[in-house]
Amino acid sequence: MSTLRDIGEDALIARLTRLVPLDPEPAAGPGDDCAVVDPGPQSDSLELLKADAIVAGIHFLADTPARAVGWKAAARVVSDFAAMGGTPERFLVTLALPVETRVSWVEELYRGIGHCLETFGAVLAGGETSRVPEGSAAVISIAATGIVRRDHLVLRSTARPGQILLVTGTLGGSFSGKHLAFTPRIREAEWLVSNFKPAAMMDLSDGLSKDLPRLAEASDCGFRLDRGSLPLSSGAAVEQAMNDGEDFELLLAMDSSQVPALLGAWPTVFPEVPLTVIGRLVTAGEGEKLVGGWDHFLASGSAGN
Amino acid sequence: MSTLRDIGEDALIARLTRLVPLDPEPAAGPGDDCAVVDPGPQSDSLELLKADAIVAGIHFLADTPARAVGWKAAARVVSDFAAMGGTPERFLVTLALPVETRVSWVEELYRGIGHCLETFGAVLAGGETSRVPEGSAAVISIAATGIVRRDHLVLRSTARPGQILLVTGTLGGSFSGKHLAFTPRIREAEWLVSNFKPAAMMDLSDGLSKDLPRLAEASDCGFRLDRGSLPLSSGAAVEQAMNDGEDFELLLAMDSSQVPALLGAWPTVFPEVPLTVIGRLVTAGEGEKLVGGWDHFLASGSAGN
Repeated sequence: MSTLRDIGEDALIARLTRLVPLDPEPAAGPGDDCAVVDPGPQSDSLELLKADAIVAGIHFLADTPARAVGWKAAARVVSDFAAMGGTPERFLVTLALPVETRVSWVEELYRGIGHCLETFGAVLAGGETSRVPEGSAAVISIAATGIVRRDHLVLRSTARPGQILLVTGTLGGSFSGKHLAFTPRIREAEWLVSNFKPAAMMDLSDGLSKDLPRLAEASDCGFRLDRGSLPLSSGAAVEQAMNDGEDFELLLAMDSSQVPALLGAWPTVFPEVPLTVIGRLVTAGEGEKLVGGWDHFLASGSAGN
Repeated sequence: MSTLRDIGEDALIARLTRLVPLDPEPAAGPGDDCAVVDPGPQSDSLELLKADAIVAGIHFLADTPARAVGWKAAARVVSDFAAMGGTPERFLVTLALPVETRVSWVEELYRGIGHCLETFGAVLAGGETSRVPEGSAAVISIAATGIVRRDHLVLRSTARPGQILLVTGTLGGSFSGKHLAFTPRIREAEWLVSNFKPAAMMDLSDGLSKDLPRLAEASDCGFRLDRGSLPLSSGAAVEQAMNDGEDFELLLAMDSSQVPALLGAWPTVFPEVPLTVIGRLVTAGEGEKLVGGWDHFLASGSAGN
């Protein structure tokens, strides 16, 4: 009788997707940052779908300001749209809360969600509420639709050996507060897909140790990481940059021929956001292995991730 | 410092929707069974969006078969698409579960979800998983997109005084197991909108006492209910038919001139599903008031609702 603790998140998802009907002609494979829906050849855009949840005691604490919790809940989802080269449109918010929750806390939560939606041009389309039993953790579950130009769509699975790996921003140290106050890389992604379209892209939510192997595997590649080059958040060590998770930065793969021009142009457009080469993709089976990063069910991890 | 217990679900939602950006030109007002998205005049269909959640200890119990929990989680959402005259298309499933959850339980849950999706022609487009703290209740959160022909869309807010109120099926007794094994009225709704399009429609999730006033208020009407005519589930009293909730039957308003032909045709198409006149809409301010039904935050209600 194995439990979720025994098998972990990725193995669970692999088992579950065999048990339900899936889209027979998906525009992107399962496991990408968003699901992709093709409305048909008359449309030059594709629809994106994403669902996510944050949980009290796991993703935020009792004393975390509710407005920051709301921002985080919405911004995590916005980050997934960025990772596909798209933008968010309509949000559905489902709150499962203890009846003892203060109304003012929920209002602050919604102000945080609202601030994020306003910032990125999205709207609230609907919501649902439920209570949870006494003593149970609050769960804030967000689903959203988004849109991406057909020629801007970037997947995880389309990188090739030899391409260069880059990350935006700095990594590690999410526990010190960044996990509540990050800015989803929507504008950076929009500029990238318009000017230097990555071969593959994803957002870093579970730590580079977990997410880089996911991108490489989806693209049937191996990878070599240059740990010494990792852009570290203030006060963070390499170990944290690899494993803390909740960076919500973009990881991208790019043809090496494009990298010099990209690195030249980037600081003129985003002077406050580093863009750093951290390694490269190699042939599948070569390269290195990584362990670590955030797994919801294997984790002994502390709250805050 | 008021809590959710003090103000209840409807008052909470009214407060929250003032705090976030909303669709400036919604195809349906907030508070209908689904959000409605108009993709533009070139399309003869509208998109429907819905999110919902069920919680361990509230909507199901530790010993409820996981497959029935999965069916219920998905079928509740399907019922909302039926209420708009539409059909479901793509589902996103978010699981917030204790790490001690057995893998076999989650697999059975997914088989139940899968069975419901297959039955109603929908697919799983994506999902997300998170753990909850030790001792916290599992939350199964489902979001879905659907579709409705533009001329088939039925809202809550478009009934008029003088119209007749009808319900499908029987009401009450959800605790005895019906809340786990109901059939969303997709086929009935599809036939109705094609043959006798209701003036307004919704699904009964929180009990007639709660939901009928919602439909009447959305349409700016009052109502008179004929309690003696309520179609009772086996073993259920009028009190239960009014208040148990989780009937997932359709409540509809229809011009009185159409009702005789509708009642004549219905049993030839759906011989096993009653369709019953239960009252009528009157001018706003006239009619009666109802109290009761299910409110997630005011409820002292027992588990199972």
